Amino acid sequence: MATAKLLLLVLAATSCCGAGAWELRGGLRKMPPAVEAAAERLREDVAAPVIHALRPLVGSAGDLAGVPCDSWRLAVEAHNKIDWATVPASCEGYVGNYMFGGHYRRDSRFVVDEAIAYAEGLKLGGNGKEVWVFDIDETSLSNLPYYAKHGFGTKPYNATSFNAYVLEGSAPVLPETQRLFKKLISLGIKPVFLTGRTEDQRAITVANLRRQGYSGWMKLLLKPVGLKASAVAYKSDERRKLQDAGYLIVGNIGDQWSDILGAPEGARTFKLPDPLYYIG
Amino acid sequence: MATAKLLLLVLAATSCCGAGAWELRGGLRKMPPAVEAAAERLREDVAAPVIHALRPLVGSAGDLAGVPCDSWRLAVEAHNKIDWATVPASCEGYVGNYMFGGHYRRDSRFVVDEAIAYAEGLKLGGNGKEVWVFDIDETSLSNLPYYAKHGFGTKPYNATSFNAYVLEGSAPVLPETQRLFKKLISLGIKPVFLTGRTEDQRAITVANLRRQGYSGWMKLLLKPVGLKASAVAYKSDERRKLQDAGYLIVGNIGDQWSDILGAPEGARTFKLPDPLYYIG
Repeated sequence: MATAKLLLLVLAATSCCGAGAWELRGGLRKMPPAVEAAAERLREDVAAPVIHALRPLVGSAGDLAGVPCDSWRLAVEAHNKIDWATVPASCEGYVGNYMFGGHYRRDSRFVVDEAIAYAEGLKLGGNGKEVWVFDIDETSLSNLPYYAKHGFGTKPYNATSFNAYVLEGSAPVLPETQRLFKKLISLGIKPVFLTGRTEDQRAITVANLRRQGYSGWMKLLLKPVGLKASAVAYKSDERRKLQDAGYLIVGNIGDQWSDILGAPEGARTFKLPDPLYYIG
Repeated sequence: MATAKLLLLVLAATSCCGAGAWELRGGLRKMPPAVEAAAERLREDVAAPVIHALRPLVGSAGDLAGVPCDSWRLAVEAHNKIDWATVPASCEGYVGNYMFGGHYRRDSRFVVDEAIAYAEGLKLGGNGKEVWVFDIDETSLSNLPYYAKHGFGTKPYNATSFNAYVLEGSAPVLPETQRLFKKLISLGIKPVFLTGRTEDQRAITVANLRRQGYSGWMKLLLKPVGLKASAVAYKSDERRKLQDAGYLIVGNIGDQWSDILGAPEGARTFKLPDPLYYIG
């Protein structure tokens, strides 16, 4: 019966995942073997199928009463599971497989396809006042190289090591989001970055964004150093300022519910997947 | 390479799905063979593994450029895919497998576990004013027997046949939701049903709820016949009336985003899975 508790995934990588920016740089000594193997297969031959061994009902063989990782992830994405500090330890392999196995990319692409269809259907006012708000981390840039080396969210947040990673300015692009970003510019909708990164990280953030192919944004709004406000309060407040300045927020995209909750949210909001961490 | 495009699921049904209320009554002539086989296995032996053949990247063998059904479902649950009329035709088998294969039950259980943990942590005022709003269809009762015979949401909504089904009063309980309902009553939180079913369906709705083990609700709010209002407007308005009458809406659970969007939403909201239909 042990094998009956396994979820065997046979995924064709052909139509989903160019390796490119998704190759991990640097050492990956802490990656679970299954994730390393999957990443390696992606690097070697993106046309070959990637075979993962997942456990939908229990997180690991040693934890038979454990968390159903797929239900946990759905609950996170649908805003049922909130205020969590870390990914369940037993779901480390599951999250790693999700992030590297093409599933994350496919889910992200679907969201962006919806966002583009919506944007293309908008009737613009012709006065250049339409803007679209983009979060940065896990929305425009990916911190997956960091999280892959730190337990895929199973370890408590470590501000020191995470900020050291941010200051490298090496975060890869999230290609689907960049596709939306460029499409909006071509349509005449102005992108605005609104991030929980702090003002003292402006220079490296700009450098990282440019290095990864972003250009032409209207504003880059960073959090004042020392501001004590929740993400929802801070981001809502910044969106209200945009609105008060005469801009129409036609769209808003982020990986956290705190990016897209709180009036004014934007005329339509899009939630990208993120099973790595929660920001309230 | 064709086989590489298949997602093979080997699910253990042991820990998730008693058959019970989930046995389908009546003819199932329109069910896809794979779904019928899965349902049959569940009926025969709930301890045996259920083997499904799903296609994550394409909906059917004949539709290689089709919808990635798992990404479609996630987008529905996270409120990225909105205003849709029917399930993509190529996802009929996927949705059927999801609903019958234990995955739906497992996802629902996870949401209810979160809701119960939240409810148990509440400090009540002691004046009996705390209420919890429950939607009915696909929340408290299941219309899966109807949808299994009508293409699992792939066919356009047919008010005549659906209302005929409702008037049978035979919709089975959603066991996870009933567990929450009973727990809330034991905690002293009063359940209120708030449904898009119309006032002329009150008697059969009460009969169906009672037959399926519900009792002790404080109110059953049905939509006035002929009311022209969106689900969000109608339900928000009813919640506001509850609030104006002195009740504190500590929780709100539904399968549609229109159940839980619109102030006052309730202090916390829970979105149950529903890949069968969308109500805006």
